[in-house]
Amino acid sequence: MKKNVLIIGAGGVAQVAAFKAAMHNDVLGDIHIASRTVSKCEAIIAGILDKKALKRPGVLAAHALDALDVAATKALIAQTKSQIVINAGSAFLNMSVLQACVETGAAYIDTAIHEEPGKICETPPWYGNYEWKHRDSCERKGVTAILGAGFDPGVVNAYAAMAARHYFDSIASIDIIDVNAGSHGRYFATNFDPEINFREFTGTVWSWQNSQWTANAMFEVNRTDDLPVVGNHTTYLTGHDEIHSLSANLDVPDIRFWMGFGEHYINVFTVLKNLGLLSEQPVTTAEGVEIVPLKVVKAVLPDPVSLAPDYAGKTFIGDLIVGERDGEAAELLVYNICDHEETYAETNSQAISYTAGVPVVAAAILIAKGVWDCHHMANIEELPPLPFIELIGEMGLPTRLRDAKGDRAFDPAEFRTERQKTKSRA
Amino acid sequence: MKKNVLIIGAGGVAQVAAFKAAMHNDVLGDIHIASRTVSKCEAIIAGILDKKALKRPGVLAAHALDALDVAATKALIAQTKSQIVINAGSAFLNMSVLQACVETGAAYIDTAIHEEPGKICETPPWYGNYEWKHRDSCERKGVTAILGAGFDPGVVNAYAAMAARHYFDSIASIDIIDVNAGSHGRYFATNFDPEINFREFTGTVWSWQNSQWTANAMFEVNRTDDLPVVGNHTTYLTGHDEIHSLSANLDVPDIRFWMGFGEHYINVFTVLKNLGLLSEQPVTTAEGVEIVPLKVVKAVLPDPVSLAPDYAGKTFIGDLIVGERDGEAAELLVYNICDHEETYAETNSQAISYTAGVPVVAAAILIAKGVWDCHHMANIEELPPLPFIELIGEMGLPTRLRDAKGDRAFDPAEFRTERQKTKSRA
Repeated sequence: MKKNVLIIGAGGVAQVAAFKAAMHNDVLGDIHIASRTVSKCEAIIAGILDKKALKRPGVLAAHALDALDVAATKALIAQTKSQIVINAGSAFLNMSVLQACVETGAAYIDTAIHEEPGKICETPPWYGNYEWKHRDSCERKGVTAILGAGFDPGVVNAYAAMAARHYFDSIASIDIIDVNAGSHGRYFATNFDPEINFREFTGTVWSWQNSQWTANAMFEVNRTDDLPVVGNHTTYLTGHDEIHSLSANLDVPDIRFWMGFGEHYINVFTVLKNLGLLSEQPVTTAEGVEIVPLKVVKAVLPDPVSLAPDYAGKTFIGDLIVGERDGEAAELLVYNICDHEETYAETNSQAISYTAGVPVVAAAILIAKGVWDCHHMANIEELPPLPFIELIGEMGLPTRLRDAKGDRAFDPAEFRTERQKTKSRA
Repeated sequence: MKKNVLIIGAGGVAQVAAFKAAMHNDVLGDIHIASRTVSKCEAIIAGILDKKALKRPGVLAAHALDALDVAATKALIAQTKSQIVINAGSAFLNMSVLQACVETGAAYIDTAIHEEPGKICETPPWYGNYEWKHRDSCERKGVTAILGAGFDPGVVNAYAAMAARHYFDSIASIDIIDVNAGSHGRYFATNFDPEINFREFTGTVWSWQNSQWTANAMFEVNRTDDLPVVGNHTTYLTGHDEIHSLSANLDVPDIRFWMGFGEHYINVFTVLKNLGLLSEQPVTTAEGVEIVPLKVVKAVLPDPVSLAPDYAGKTFIGDLIVGERDGEAAELLVYNICDHEETYAETNSQAISYTAGVPVVAAAILIAKGVWDCHHMANIEELPPLPFIELIGEMGLPTRLRDAKGDRAFDPAEFRTERQKTKSRA
C-alpha cells in the first residue's frame, strides 16, 4: 500500500487529476499539487473546494516547484511524504521527475512520452530514446514507474491488451482512433499545450505496418469511419506514443494511430508550419532578439485551460481491432465517449483533459491498492487491463464495445478467459 | 540647382534608387547610401559597379547610419554635402529624417507615409497626423519636401493630377489599381518589409467616397477588372497613402485604392491576423520573453530582397478615372506595366521595388534641375505632373493610356491644354 500523491503540473490534465485524486483521498491520502506558477495550483484547489470535491477532510496543498530541478523535486517528495508522483506537467519534465522518483523510491506515473525541447520526432521506438533507458534502475530499486497512463497513450493500450489477452486468438491490426467532435467556439486553439500539441504533427509520421516502422508525412494518409455517437469523421495517420510500446509488447503486425482534424485546423497548421512558425529552432529578429517561433505561437494562442467553459460536444477515443477469434475473422471496436459540458460541470475541465486526467488517477489508485504496484517500469499494456478499465468506468469514463454481437457496455465478465499473453520483456 | 544625393535605406527600393541615381550622376553628383547595416549598402554598391551602372566616374559611398538619430543624420548630410536626401528606409524613419533635412536645408523625398511603431492605421487624413504638421517649418525655411514619390503613392498621384489638369473638365471617381501578376515561387513572402506590408491591411480600410471618409474591413469589398497585358484580376479595397492627399488636393468625390491579392495570400494573411501574429503589441512567452509577434513573422519570412532573382511576370499599376470631358461622360485608364525579370537584369531588383525606386530618383532629378524645387512641402499632385511622367518613361517606367480612342503610349503633346487647377493649399 502506497499513499500521499504529489501531482506535478497545473494545466488541464493536472486539474482533472487533482479533482479525481481529491474525490479518492480516502484511498490516496494527502494530495499535493506543484507547479512553477503556484497561483495556478491554488486556483485548482479553490475549484475543488468550491465544488466540495474532497471526499473526506484531508491535506490538499499547493507548492511552487521547478520540476527540472531534481534536488528540489526530491525535497518536495520527502517533505510531503508522497509515495506516488503523478507527472502531469510538460513532457519536457519526464526525465527529471522520473529521476527524483527513482532516487526517493516514490512510484512514478506520467501521461505522455518525454520530449527534449530542441528535438522533434525522434527515431522509433520513442520510449527507447529516454524512458526505457531507466528500466534497469527502476528494477534494481524496486520502483514502480508507469508510463503513458492517460487515455491515449494509456486506456487505449489497456484496450489492446484486453483484446490480446481475453478476446482474440491472434490480432492482425490495431487502429487507434481519436476524434474530438466538440467545439470551443474560438478561431483556433490547441486542446493542450501548443508547444507539445504541434510537435506531434511537425515531424515524420511513424507507424507500425507489416511489422516494421513506416514513415509518412503528416496529413498524407487518412480514413473516414462512421463512429458510434459522433458519426462520420475523417482521421489522419499520426505518430503517437502508444505505437512505440504496443509494437514492442504485442505481436501485432499493423498498429496505427489516427487523429481527427477539421479542414480549418489543417489549414491553420499548414500555414504556420510552412512559414516556419512551428519551428523549435530560434530565429533572430531585425532587432537582434533570439526567439523560438513556436513559443511565440503558443503565447498568442488561447490558454487551453481557458477553452473549457465554452466547450460543447463529445470526444470519441477507441481501438478498432481486427483478428481471429475461435477460428474466424473478427472485428472489435472498444471505445469511450466523453462529453465536454459534463466534464466541465464536474471538474472545470473539458473532455480532452478529462480523458487523460481520470486514468492517471485510476493508475495511482491501482498502485495504492497494490494491484499495479509492480516495482518496475511498465507500459500500460504490460499490466492487468481489466481492473483499470473497470475502475475508469466507475470514475467517469465508461467503456463500450461493438462487434458482431452489437454495441454494448463493457462487462468484465465477458473477458474472463485468458487467451494470449502479451510478450514478456526480455 | 541642388546636387549630391544621400539615399537612406538599403532594401529593395533603396537599391533601385541607388542604381538609378548612379545612372544619372552627371545631374545628381555624389551618391551616398546610408543604412544601419553598412554591409547592405556595400553590397548595393558592388552590384552597381559590377553592372557598370555609374554614368560617369564619381563618388559612390556607403555609410553606417541610425536614421532615427537626427544629429547623426544631420552630420552625415553635412559631411557628404548632400543637398537632396532620398528617404527609402523604413517608414518609421520619416519624421527624424525630415527633421534633419529641415534643420540642414537639404531637400527631402520619401516614398511612403510615416508610421509610428506602436500604431496601426490612424485616423484620416494620415498625412495630417505627421507630415503636414511640418508644412510651416518647411515653408519658413524654404525647404523642399516631396512626400510619397514612389509609384503608389507617387506616379499614381501625378496621373490623377494630369487627368484633372489636362484631360477632364470634372472627375467623378479615381480608382487606383495595383496588381502584381508576377510570381516569386516561394510558399509565401511579402514584396517589401513585412512589418510595413502587413500594417497596410491589419487596420480599418479607409476610402474617400461621396466626399467623406468611409470605413470598411480588409477584404470586405472587391472588384474584378480585365486589365491591359495582365488580364483578369480581382482587387480589394485597401487603405493607402495617396487617398489621404488626393482627397484634400483634388475636388473628386470618390477616390479608392484597390490592391490585387491571390486566394493563397489572403488565406495566409487571414490565419496570421486572426491568430494575433500580425500584432505590433508585445506578447510575453511562457519563459517571460516580451516580443512583438509581427517581428517574429518578419524574421521567418524570406527577405524581400532575396526574392528578386526568381521573380517572373509583370506588375500593373494605374488610375481608372471617370468624369466629364467636353460635356460628355469619359473614362481614362492611365497605367504602367513593369516586368520583374527585366528590372532584375537592370538593377538586381524585382518590379515592385523598381516601380517605387525609379520615380523617387526622377523626383530628385527634377529637384536638381529646379523644376520641382518648390521650397515647401508638397504631395506629388501639387507639382507639375507632365515632366515627371515623361522622365520616368525615359528612365524605364513608360506610361500608357486607354480611353475611347483606344490603348496607346503616353504622349505629353496630348496634354498641353490646361483644364482644371488642382486645389491650392489653404
